[in-house]
Amino acid sequence: MSKGLKIATIGGGSSYTPELVEGFIKRYDELPVRELWLVDIEAGKEKLEIVGNLAKRMIEKAGLPIEVHLTLDRKAALKDADFVTTQFRVGQLDARAKDERIPLKHGVLGQETNGPGGLFKGLRTIPVILDIVKDMKELCPDAWLINFTNPAGMVTEAILRYTDHEKVVGLCNVPIGMEMGTAKLLDVDHSRIRIDFAGLNHMVYGLDVYLDGVSVKDRVIELLAAPENSSFVKNIDGLGWEPEFIRALNALTCPYHLYYYKRNEMLEKELKNFKEGTTRAEVVKKLEAELFELYKDPNISIKPPQLEERGGAYYSDAAVRLISSMYNDKRDIQPVNTKNNGSIASIPNDSAVEVSCVITKEGPKPIVNGDLPVAVRGLVQQIKSFERVGAEAAVTGNYDTALLAMTINPLVPSDKVGKVILDEMLEAHKEHLPQFFQAVGK
Amino acid sequence: MSKGLKIATIGGGSSYTPELVEGFIKRYDELPVRELWLVDIEAGKEKLEIVGNLAKRMIEKAGLPIEVHLTLDRKAALKDADFVTTQFRVGQLDARAKDERIPLKHGVLGQETNGPGGLFKGLRTIPVILDIVKDMKELCPDAWLINFTNPAGMVTEAILRYTDHEKVVGLCNVPIGMEMGTAKLLDVDHSRIRIDFAGLNHMVYGLDVYLDGVSVKDRVIELLAAPENSSFVKNIDGLGWEPEFIRALNALTCPYHLYYYKRNEMLEKELKNFKEGTTRAEVVKKLEAELFELYKDPNISIKPPQLEERGGAYYSDAAVRLISSMYNDKRDIQPVNTKNNGSIASIPNDSAVEVSCVITKEGPKPIVNGDLPVAVRGLVQQIKSFERVGAEAAVTGNYDTALLAMTINPLVPSDKVGKVILDEMLEAHKEHLPQFFQAVGK
Amino acid sequence: MSKGLKIATIGGGSSYTPELVEGFIKRYDELPVRELWLVDIEAGKEKLEIVGNLAKRMIEKAGLPIEVHLTLDRKAALKDADFVTTQFRVGQLDARAKDERIPLKHGVLGQETNGPGGLFKGLRTIPVILDIVKDMKELCPDAWLINFTNPAGMVTEAILRYTDHEKVVGLCNVPIGMEMGTAKLLDVDHSRIRIDFAGLNHMVYGLDVYLDGVSVKDRVIELLAAPENSSFVKNIDGLGWEPEFIRALNALTCPYHLYYYKRNEMLEKELKNFKEGTTRAEVVKKLEAELFELYKDPNISIKPPQLEERGGAYYSDAAVRLISSMYNDKRDIQPVNTKNNGSIASIPNDSAVEVSCVITKEGPKPIVNGDLPVAVRGLVQQIKSFERVGAEAAVTGNYDTALLAMTINPLVPSDKVGKVILDEMLEAHKEHLPQFFQAVGK
Amino acid sequence: MSKGLKIATIGGGSSYTPELVEGFIKRYDELPVRELWLVDIEAGKEKLEIVGNLAKRMIEKAGLPIEVHLTLDRKAALKDADFVTTQFRVGQLDARAKDERIPLKHGVLGQETNGPGGLFKGLRTIPVILDIVKDMKELCPDAWLINFTNPAGMVTEAILRYTDHEKVVGLCNVPIGMEMGTAKLLDVDHSRIRIDFAGLNHMVYGLDVYLDGVSVKDRVIELLAAPENSSFVKNIDGLGWEPEFIRALNALTCPYHLYYYKRNEMLEKELKNFKEGTTRAEVVKKLEAELFELYKDPNISIKPPQLEERGGAYYSDAAVRLISSMYNDKRDIQPVNTKNNGSIASIPNDSAVEVSCVITKEGPKPIVNGDLPVAVRGLVQQIKSFERVGAEAAVTGNYDTALLAMTINPLVPSDKVGKVILDEMLEAHKEHLPQFFQAVGK
Repeated sequence: MSKGLKIATIGGGSSYTPELVEGFIKRYDELPVRELWLVDIEAGKEKLEIVGNLAKRMIEKAGLPIEVHLTLDRKAALKDADFVTTQFRVGQLDARAKDERIPLKHGVLGQETNGPGGLFKGLRTIPVILDIVKDMKELCPDAWLINFTNPAGMVTEAILRYTDHEKVVGLCNVPIGMEMGTAKLLDVDHSRIRIDFAGLNHMVYGLDVYLDGVSVKDRVIELLAAPENSSFVKNIDGLGWEPEFIRALNALTCPYHLYYYKRNEMLEKELKNFKEGTTRAEVVKKLEAELFELYKDPNISIKPPQLEERGGAYYSDAAVRLISSMYNDKRDIQPVNTKNNGSIASIPNDSAVEVSCVITKEGPKPIVNGDLPVAVRGLVQQIKSFERVGAEAAVTGNYDTALLAMTINPLVPSDKVGKVILDEMLEAHKEHLPQFFQAVGK
Repeated sequence: MSKGLKIATIGGGSSYTPELVEGFIKRYDELPVRELWLVDIEAGKEKLEIVGNLAKRMIEKAGLPIEVHLTLDRKAALKDADFVTTQFRVGQLDARAKDERIPLKHGVLGQETNGPGGLFKGLRTIPVILDIVKDMKELCPDAWLINFTNPAGMVTEAILRYTDHEKVVGLCNVPIGMEMGTAKLLDVDHSRIRIDFAGLNHMVYGLDVYLDGVSVKDRVIELLAAPENSSFVKNIDGLGWEPEFIRALNALTCPYHLYYYKRNEMLEKELKNFKEGTTRAEVVKKLEAELFELYKDPNISIKPPQLEERGGAYYSDAAVRLISSMYNDKRDIQPVNTKNNGSIASIPNDSAVEVSCVITKEGPKPIVNGDLPVAVRGLVQQIKSFERVGAEAAVTGNYDTALLAMTINPLVPSDKVGKVILDEMLEAHKEHLPQFFQAVGK
Repeated sequence: MSKGLKIATIGGGSSYTPELVEGFIKRYDELPVRELWLVDIEAGKEKLEIVGNLAKRMIEKAGLPIEVHLTLDRKAALKDADFVTTQFRVGQLDARAKDERIPLKHGVLGQETNGPGGLFKGLRTIPVILDIVKDMKELCPDAWLINFTNPAGMVTEAILRYTDHEKVVGLCNVPIGMEMGTAKLLDVDHSRIRIDFAGLNHMVYGLDVYLDGVSVKDRVIELLAAPENSSFVKNIDGLGWEPEFIRALNALTCPYHLYYYKRNEMLEKELKNFKEGTTRAEVVKKLEAELFELYKDPNISIKPPQLEERGGAYYSDAAVRLISSMYNDKRDIQPVNTKNNGSIASIPNDSAVEVSCVITKEGPKPIVNGDLPVAVRGLVQQIKSFERVGAEAAVTGNYDTALLAMTINPLVPSDKVGKVILDEMLEAHKEHLPQFFQAVGK
Repeated sequence: MSKGLKIATIGGGSSYTPELVEGFIKRYDELPVRELWLVDIEAGKEKLEIVGNLAKRMIEKAGLPIEVHLTLDRKAALKDADFVTTQFRVGQLDARAKDERIPLKHGVLGQETNGPGGLFKGLRTIPVILDIVKDMKELCPDAWLINFTNPAGMVTEAILRYTDHEKVVGLCNVPIGMEMGTAKLLDVDHSRIRIDFAGLNHMVYGLDVYLDGVSVKDRVIELLAAPENSSFVKNIDGLGWEPEFIRALNALTCPYHLYYYKRNEMLEKELKNFKEGTTRAEVVKKLEAELFELYKDPNISIKPPQLEERGGAYYSDAAVRLISSMYNDKRDIQPVNTKNNGSIASIPNDSAVEVSCVITKEGPKPIVNGDLPVAVRGLVQQIKSFERVGAEAAVTGNYDTALLAMTINPLVPSDKVGKVILDEMLEAHKEHLPQFFQAVGK
């Protein structure tokens, strides 16, 4: 590492890349990146070039000696990398649109990381990520994999359970968004807020919240009980909690909890989008098209502010902050997806959880939580069951297992409806699910 | 006990009583009952007399020296009892009708032991049962409480958590029904079948099933995959499992699983009943009226076969079989609700579970299960969360806690809908929920 | 199995065999043994013939159609067996004498199943038993292995941890001896006593004790507090507990607890035997010689009563009782060594424990114990650590691991003394420990 | 806290106090102490004045506005305190001498925190500390108790188990000594070393060790395998580990492990001291006399370097570092005694453990360890059993429980020897053990 770090970013053509690059630029003093390899597949070549050239302009403008490599050769990118980040999307936004629209067609929530959509994103993503891990074992066995690709919980679970590569961290911008949202509610600087996070990816709770180290949970719960406040991030509309409910729950919720504690209302909202052709994928597609138009502009050499509309705010900060803490053995506290190992009592030790961890050079070390509050324990366990069965289906390509995962998801109303959706989605995503369509012998 | 046993049956005016009496008669040789005290409240006096007189005729016909006492004085009945059985229904069938109809009015499943109805049955029942336990501590501290009153899981949880009386067993006829159903599927005698039961009341799974001690699980799963077979008991119509789903689940389900794995279909069915005025309470009310007409007939001195239509079949057998096994230290295996104590790994040791137990004179001793299969673990945990929060609401009379229990129930679609139902049901059951309406100071 | 069972007994030339045969004869009505294969190795051929011929005479006298086969061909014996029992002794009594005398020479307790002797018996036995299991997987995969060979705890642990053959039960006569001893203390028939056993082999406690199903623990503890009573079995002399100690311990001890709670006194006693040449192996050797003289006598065709002096009383009863309960799916309660699976809370689920189990056709199912009493938890864990590290050393032949096992044994006073004993014992048992002496590449 | 902190130090007359004062002076910039109350009892009045006056001179010389109060009125000291530190010694060094000499007289290790001596120090200390906690609940309920009084493990366990004051941290200088020792072995600055500590007080292991965030465990283990290195702190002589043993143990040991893994050798060494009148208490008594002579010197106004001979090196640093991290919400990692809460898998969640924690304003938060390595699990559990039974004996004054604690301690060879020592020590410490000598009714 004497000459600086090599970073490989799989899915480098993503519209998020400028944020990541901005993050590396901002923290160059503490995180000396020497090479940034942006990798994509043939289908993403054009976007890779556009965003890659913007990245080069950004770095040039910052006057830093970071080499940016654009490549379709994943192995070359992985070779001797120090950190590998993954932000690819199998099937791109078209696949996401199917994940959203097919379930909605059958009256079931369609969403990228929850319900049937989350399952299918997992089924498409997990085989690819396991393949990347296999390459890493060979080409950069000491590198850490920092995965942002959703569903981050199911993906991390799959890596922990089906590979022996323990150097993986699943990262999400939801917790950082909750901290920022809380800071905003309290009208204080983000740096003064710390939350004890515990749960699973997109199913994470804030068990306590501190301002300058002193618990202000009661105050924050009361603020959340005010209906206008109960949602923290932009890409899900605010739908207020019943005040008595959030008081009794007595934990900070994340935006995705709306899908479970407001199943009906969220479904109605999504069905409206479905009818109007404005599901999230459809909206993002337009946003991305506009973004890439901007990215193309050779006069632009900073991250365009419009990217914040995209929905992935704080990812850059979260990712580069994490890499820097690991590289510098900072031992600060960050919420990430990692092996439970006793942090949450009733989740198996070898399962992935999203909890506050001390970040060291040797990876994240979870802080203990004892057990989750009684009222949230059940739902978390149910999503963990779903993640595990879903990961198994992704690895085995077994139809029955996939139907089981589908049916036990709390957003799916029955085995029968689940089967209808499953069959239609398998067909729609056929191209990206070879494990389900291979000849006998699999 | 030298002169035989004293049994106190709370809710003695129940239409089930003739079954219980039949059970005591059949097993008199091994279970020498000397006194049977049937207790009821003022409102149930007429039914108590009718059923009590039938009980006396049955015993007389059998030529046994069992004294039947009919009383409204619970303390007199409990005094020095050896076993106390509870089969009362707070608010009688009218309350049950409300438990069913109010949620259905708001498009949510209405059922006696699941969803909002189950919660309210718990809220009404738990304070009464804790009061009975308090009396038992004083009047018959060595007696075992055999509770059949639903929701048996939440009630057993409440007794274990809020009293120090450990001599309690929650009993249900569902497991015995599953065994009988399996025997029927295999066309063998019930006595040759044994199932490893694990889960919670009305959320119990058969993890393995044996014919003459040899596992026949694969065969039974295949039989259950045939749509006509997947329901075991009479009071819920057969709705077949998707074959791939039940194969992947790889466990025997109980009839109540239909509410969760076929949420939509069951709701539709119930909504139809709702519209037609044929919810279960309404049907049972008619059945009971007919039964009590029969019971009145002084020429009848056996349990009328029509009682089997009532839905509680096998209760008699389950209850008296259990009491006899305890009295005789039989050490046979029976599924009951008792303290977990490690039988299911991810459920707290001090929580109630429904598992196969060895029945000894000193109570049931659970057999280990390790952990539940991954796919079922989540739903079981969710119901356990619901039971615990529900029991807490019943004991404290706290509105927020009740809303929390309502909202985390997987059959309730949102905090908002939950609140509407909660408010309407609290008002409707006001008379039987003093803990929620008492003056400040509570 | 239509024609009856095939039993293979490894170590068939043991002096215990007549007891086993007697057991099969007594229970022939319920356990139709067709073939009994007594297997031994070349070195044991003479004893095998002697005891085998006695077995044949016993069966002939009983008039039963059981074929007795004597063989040195283990594979022939295992082929299609229904039950395999193991009672062999690697290195025979000479090895046992070394296990006893070498530690004592260095002032450390020398005993067959505890301390350095127990470790070395494990190191010699485990590779052989794993080899038998390997043969069973091939020749009789559905057969149950009933292991009596000591150290039964470490051996069962090794099978559970290093093979995928789950059909194994470790059996010991200590618990049955404790029940018989208790019956004698209370002056009642053995059949009326039941003990809740929990712990490890030769480190098992009686957590409760019942007479006709009613706890009489307090009474038994008081009887044990009387110094003359505190030892239950013949082959360890009675040494009374301090009454205040056993009252506070509040659990029934097994005879081997004397080595730990009376370390000094037992050591002194053994050192005396050491000096006088009367360690257990030396005594048993004489007893065995006398027994085999008796066995040779063609006029004897029953189990000679002198065998009871040998020390293994009740083995026959325990073993045949267990096999019969399994064969007949009796579901009675027996204490055996099996996979913990939650029966004892702080022992890993996949470790071997000795607990009360329900015996079914599909094997023993442990009854839950929650956790062990605080005061005994530590010692049990320490022996479990020893068993696991010892089993690992036996499998790997790793010197360092063997020294670790030796040093963490509570009877070994230091790493230094442990190393001296280890080196001397490795040399003394060299012939039977090939795993420690093989060429590099192992 | 606007005007600075109030610190109350119970046992303020201790010879350690100058270190503590030095610590407060060094860190005044980040830890603004306004009042330091040194409390002692009548018998310690003279020492309190001597050491208190030195403290005043030290602070005056440093030119800081810290008020030092000397008092025998504990309640006045506790009133509104922010932190309470405890470093008292019930019965002073005379009691320690008895703790050492009485067991040694009977051939059993005599030591302040291990074996019978540790038990008796606990029996004397726990009632006093529970009394302090009771006062704190009334006078300064928000204050943290930082306990240094040994046996810190048993004392912390007692506070967690027998009070509802959760604001307690048990502190020990052993882990910091291990880190410093490791730094010395590696010849690097202490600040570059971090150890993952897990275990119990004086029974703590280093599960991994990092230099600049990178594991150097293998290197350190090899250095420890060199006999001259295996002991880290001054007050226990170096006795080298057998290299094969420490390699197989594969964890860093603390000096007190010598008592268990070198029981014989340590006992011999102590017996020599016993005969020569040079047990630790006897040595320390002389050292203390010399120290107090120095402290009296009005010309001395710094901590005399001779204090480092005393044996408690780094306490000052550990204590003030901890208080400062809490006060400033530093979230750095420090090893302390606190509630387990899942950090070590097989220890109950509500028991005290000594583990690496993140130190926040709201107290220490343990980092997960999964479970301890198999080989060390047993001994740790045994000491935990001892601590729990010992704490119970201290609270109840029950003789039988005290004998049980004594007997299950791995350094006590039998119940019989334990009883002899118990009886003699109870008599010797009678004055400080009122709970064992009170009239009936206790």
